[in-house]
Amino acid sequence: MDFSSFLTSLGTSFVIFLVLMIVFAWLSSRPGNNVVYYPNRIIKKLEPLEGGYKTRNPFSWIKEAVYSSEQDVIDMSGVDTAVYFVFLNTVLGILVLSGVILLPALLPLSVTDNGGKKQTTSEGTFNELDKLSMANITAKSSRLWGFFIACYWVSIVTLALLWRAYKHVSWLRYEAFKSPDVKPEQFAIVVRDIPPAPQGKTRKEQVDTYFKAIYPEAFYRSMIVTDNKVVNKIWEKLEGYKKKLVRAEVIYEGSKTTAKPDGTRPTNKTGFLGLIGKKVDSIDYYNAKINELVTKLESEQKVTLREKQQDAALVFFSNRVVAASAAQNLHAQMVDTWSVCDAPEPHQLIWPNLKIKFFQRQLRQFLVYVIVALTIFFYMIPITLISALTTLDNLVKLLPFIKSIVKIKALRTVLEAYLPQLALIIFLALLPKLLLFLSKFEGIPTESHAVRAASGKYFYFNVLNVFVGVTIGGTLFQSFKKIEKNPNGTAALLAASLPGNATFFLTYVALKFFVGYGLELSRLVPLIIYHLKRKYLCKTEAELRDAWAPGDLGYGTRVPGDMLIVTIVLCYSVIAPVIIPFGALYFGFGWLVLRNQVLKVYVPSYETYGRMWPHIHNRILASLILYQITMFGYFGVQKFYYAPLLIPLPILSLVFGFVCGKKFYPAFQHQALEVAAVADRELKEAPNMELIFRSFIPPSLSSEKIDDDQFEDALSQVSRSTSFV
Amino acid sequence: MDFSSFLTSLGTSFVIFLVLMIVFAWLSSRPGNNVVYYPNRIIKKLEPLEGGYKTRNPFSWIKEAVYSSEQDVIDMSGVDTAVYFVFLNTVLGILVLSGVILLPALLPLSVTDNGGKKQTTSEGTFNELDKLSMANITAKSSRLWGFFIACYWVSIVTLALLWRAYKHVSWLRYEAFKSPDVKPEQFAIVVRDIPPAPQGKTRKEQVDTYFKAIYPEAFYRSMIVTDNKVVNKIWEKLEGYKKKLVRAEVIYEGSKTTAKPDGTRPTNKTGFLGLIGKKVDSIDYYNAKINELVTKLESEQKVTLREKQQDAALVFFSNRVVAASAAQNLHAQMVDTWSVCDAPEPHQLIWPNLKIKFFQRQLRQFLVYVIVALTIFFYMIPITLISALTTLDNLVKLLPFIKSIVKIKALRTVLEAYLPQLALIIFLALLPKLLLFLSKFEGIPTESHAVRAASGKYFYFNVLNVFVGVTIGGTLFQSFKKIEKNPNGTAALLAASLPGNATFFLTYVALKFFVGYGLELSRLVPLIIYHLKRKYLCKTEAELRDAWAPGDLGYGTRVPGDMLIVTIVLCYSVIAPVIIPFGALYFGFGWLVLRNQVLKVYVPSYETYGRMWPHIHNRILASLILYQITMFGYFGVQKFYYAPLLIPLPILSLVFGFVCGKKFYPAFQHQALEVAAVADRELKEAPNMELIFRSFIPPSLSSEKIDDDQFEDALSQVSRSTSFV
Repeated sequence: MDFSSFLTSLGTSFVIFLVLMIVFAWLSSRPGNNVVYYPNRIIKKLEPLEGGYKTRNPFSWIKEAVYSSEQDVIDMSGVDTAVYFVFLNTVLGILVLSGVILLPALLPLSVTDNGGKKQTTSEGTFNELDKLSMANITAKSSRLWGFFIACYWVSIVTLALLWRAYKHVSWLRYEAFKSPDVKPEQFAIVVRDIPPAPQGKTRKEQVDTYFKAIYPEAFYRSMIVTDNKVVNKIWEKLEGYKKKLVRAEVIYEGSKTTAKPDGTRPTNKTGFLGLIGKKVDSIDYYNAKINELVTKLESEQKVTLREKQQDAALVFFSNRVVAASAAQNLHAQMVDTWSVCDAPEPHQLIWPNLKIKFFQRQLRQFLVYVIVALTIFFYMIPITLISALTTLDNLVKLLPFIKSIVKIKALRTVLEAYLPQLALIIFLALLPKLLLFLSKFEGIPTESHAVRAASGKYFYFNVLNVFVGVTIGGTLFQSFKKIEKNPNGTAALLAASLPGNATFFLTYVALKFFVGYGLELSRLVPLIIYHLKRKYLCKTEAELRDAWAPGDLGYGTRVPGDMLIVTIVLCYSVIAPVIIPFGALYFGFGWLVLRNQVLKVYVPSYETYGRMWPHIHNRILASLILYQITMFGYFGVQKFYYAPLLIPLPILSLVFGFVCGKKFYPAFQHQALEVAAVADRELKEAPNMELIFRSFIPPSLSSEKIDDDQFEDALSQVSRSTSFV
Repeated sequence: MDFSSFLTSLGTSFVIFLVLMIVFAWLSSRPGNNVVYYPNRIIKKLEPLEGGYKTRNPFSWIKEAVYSSEQDVIDMSGVDTAVYFVFLNTVLGILVLSGVILLPALLPLSVTDNGGKKQTTSEGTFNELDKLSMANITAKSSRLWGFFIACYWVSIVTLALLWRAYKHVSWLRYEAFKSPDVKPEQFAIVVRDIPPAPQGKTRKEQVDTYFKAIYPEAFYRSMIVTDNKVVNKIWEKLEGYKKKLVRAEVIYEGSKTTAKPDGTRPTNKTGFLGLIGKKVDSIDYYNAKINELVTKLESEQKVTLREKQQDAALVFFSNRVVAASAAQNLHAQMVDTWSVCDAPEPHQLIWPNLKIKFFQRQLRQFLVYVIVALTIFFYMIPITLISALTTLDNLVKLLPFIKSIVKIKALRTVLEAYLPQLALIIFLALLPKLLLFLSKFEGIPTESHAVRAASGKYFYFNVLNVFVGVTIGGTLFQSFKKIEKNPNGTAALLAASLPGNATFFLTYVALKFFVGYGLELSRLVPLIIYHLKRKYLCKTEAELRDAWAPGDLGYGTRVPGDMLIVTIVLCYSVIAPVIIPFGALYFGFGWLVLRNQVLKVYVPSYETYGRMWPHIHNRILASLILYQITMFGYFGVQKFYYAPLLIPLPILSLVFGFVCGKKFYPAFQHQALEVAAVADRELKEAPNMELIFRSFIPPSLSSEKIDDDQFEDALSQVSRSTSFV
């Protein structure tokens, strides 16, 4: 790619971005699209737009985003989102502070160096960038001291801002927990690996006696975890029929208003997918089904509560300090019994995982790590195999009916071009889902924790395969084969390959921010889907609400994507400082667009009070260390004799990571008691424990019809009686 | 060494052992020696001997030792000692079970193999042992399968017995904590890294408010840690003068009974060591000094309590569950403030270490590790230097007065032989003390923990230098230079060197058990010292009691010594199974002799309820893994193609260690709440908190004269007032 085609690509992306901005300004000002562009405000029962539509400047969203405070973000989207912005701020800060020094200092150094051998940063096709990079410097030149100092500057800026950010996030978490608002999860703990109940005692009695003995005053009640597989299935079926009934009734009502005053009663077939079978009156049929299922659900609920108790439980305490303390304490002499952890928000609990035993969890974790490592290193092998098998000719043999399609020449060309990569594309699209599934398989008890775990795995895949893989060429496995031949020069090999890929990554970053954030802001895809659904599918209010449900920020895949950019920009920051403004633009645009999205669009699906931060922190640090090691290697390639003076940098980073881990991390793992004590003290009246307790009952088990006595089977009663006294 | 000289050495050792046994039987039956042979019983106010002296069989101590139960050991010497016997039992069990299979199976295999090349286990001088070892087997022979199976057998036996032992020790700890007897340390926690007190608040108020907010019901009182350096010095001086006064009075009384009815008042000189200066009347002089010091102590106590408060404290709770829970909880959002740990027995606390800050502790620990690693690897360098400098001729130049001694020829010969090794001998004797000093320097808050840390360091020194060093030849540093030349063959190098040293280690083990345990049992050295002191030095009761104070078992140096034997015997178990009976005899004799010693002689100086066990466990496991790796290497040396089938063994050991660490270890780190709850429940009446609190006041600060109001400065008052309501 030469300089003009690089500029063309950049310009095209920018034009696309501008168009998308204008489209957004136009579409978002039409009230009919409110549910697509302001769902978060609508759900929170706020006016979609402050100040109405007429007086509104089409770009006032920028002003609103810029002037919104961190507290606004927390109010609209929770602490987790605020923490994500701390991440964006920190990286932006690092890039701006680095760029302000590096660009004016290093670019002149590179441009004015004319002696010595010429390396290439773009494989000989892009001379303009060559001149701006460190590769233009004569080997052993004393100008390298400038780049050397730049390495230190970037590292120190990164560490300083990371420290500030960790402190700030810790404070955010502190503030969130300090508030006296009752959060059910603050009063509960999860207990797993309960040993078999002694003879003559029910599980419930066993759990209650155990915790009453240890926390005589604060213990409130327990809830035994049950196997809800069957009852969930029935409940889902029931809910499905309920929705269908509402839909049928709406259709019926709709048909009334037209010519026929009686309307036509909708009908459906009872067989597979409503396509075959007997034709029945929908309303009657669904009503009958619902009645049938309600009875079935009730009896199944009883059976579940009585007979499907697992060896896990939720235990409730009447104050936060004791709950926070109980979640950290060692309860049993043998650690594989009565293991505890703090409860997450009720809807986050992964019930089926709670019953998995201690050592089985360890084993599963180990297995998953092995599988993920194999996936990261060797994923190209099955994909190549599949690609080889799924040639057009093979496909035609397998699926004869596509023969006619294949005959069209234009289509054939396209198919032949993309088919080999299809397996890879599908794999990459499914990878986050696969990693989430694997993380859940580990036995992690909460949804958010599983997402964090999956996100970590995705980060390693990204950095190792996209960054290291692209740089050295080929997939990771092939790269490591190269490294194996020359084990001492790993850093040097990576470093030597870096300049050649600078242009690729520059284009990558630019494309990602212009097109990526343009699409993000304009929400074209959700808009089209919503309007299609509204027109052709949705009949009821509930269906419509489902159609515009905005979803959440997608932390789990967004952070690894951003982290890849961080890694790329950090690693190139000194070699080709011209990448820094692109990185800064990526995070600047990201900040702006996402600020708008979190204030107006996305609705968080859970809240972890910033538990994602330690992960983000560690990964930025890992990128920094990768950068420091590559730079050490690259100075070696440039034959700079003082390169060993860079060795203190990775050591400093490791010490920094150790200190942060010691100082801040435990407060993310557990809740500090002093914070819980403040929250308890500021509480005006005793919390409604009954409400807290009930919020943890899964929807399939809660029913107004079922009276409390039935619940007693799995839900403790011992202390309930006392709590009512 | 040929076979006959090996037998001679063995025989001599055995004769020495027999003589020492007889000496013991004779000496221990003389009532005048009771305080040397039965001090533990005397201190516990029991009859020195059950059944009196006359009817006593001289070997009945064996019967008593064999028939004593674990409960007897716990009653007489505490849980820690019982855990030491679990260690002896476990190792003995491993050796007996291994020996029963290995000796009859492997020895015939070796002896009857006559083909192939002849390797040597004793460098060609000891053919009889050669024939009994694996080195006698022809390379690639199918007989090696026998040795191969033996490897598995020893490993499985070790793991099974270790599992049983860990479970048993965990139970011992459980039983000890379950007992309702009030142990002051169960009601207290140590708080360190207290942040600066806010304006207008004393430290005491700060600590009290903080913990009262978190534990409103159970918080009792706090004690601020003070800098006691000055007050301790005064107090020690005072105690010294008190002892001298008593001694002077006894001497005065003694002089009265003779010819002169008035007696002679003893005198002393006031200068250096009582050798120079003015001559004064001792009783008057000491009385004056004591009066002077008492006033000084009182005023210094006030100053200490008021002005020398540090940012650490002891916090007391009125029940065990809360104290156990508080010691595990995260209290502050920032972990380097308000860090907590469980309190040890009062006299174990190392007060000066409590004030060391969080990150300083980390730094010190790191520094100490570096120093210890350097010591282990390079200790021979300074010692060689010192040896080179302290030749006889140099010494004569430095200390001219020894010239006359050097002239005696016999003495000169002896000196010339031993002088080069003198530095090494002194170093080895001082090493445990050095390691203990280093461990305390880390900032460890309790005596027992420091001993454990020192013991671990000593173990590494022992195994790495004595075992690996002797085997490969030279000190560790030289060995590693050899390994560096051939990095892939580390295990093979060690394995190949093993057979050549079999005789050395056989003699080492035999010497250690015959002579070592003989001396241990007969207590000749303490006996002589005691009688010398009694005759020439001791005048008062207190001095006499000091003279026979038996000390403790010396866990810290005894365990690493035993572990060295375990490592040696395990590593040779399959190569030269003939070592197994010697190992079994070592631990058998050890069990017998030490059982006698702990029941009758040693008085434990602290109790940690078996916290040493995880360390012992991990080190046995480390020895096992070393054994498995060396065996893998040795099978390689023997060209056994199936050697890779041994690879599962170290993996199995690692998994076993991981499982044990997860399952058992946390209960050794913290106290399980269920256990504390049992203890609390079984308590008949409320514990005397005042007494518990006072037991933690160091002797130099406690004084009957000082009224409580003065203590209020550093000892909390907020809750005291409530506790008296």
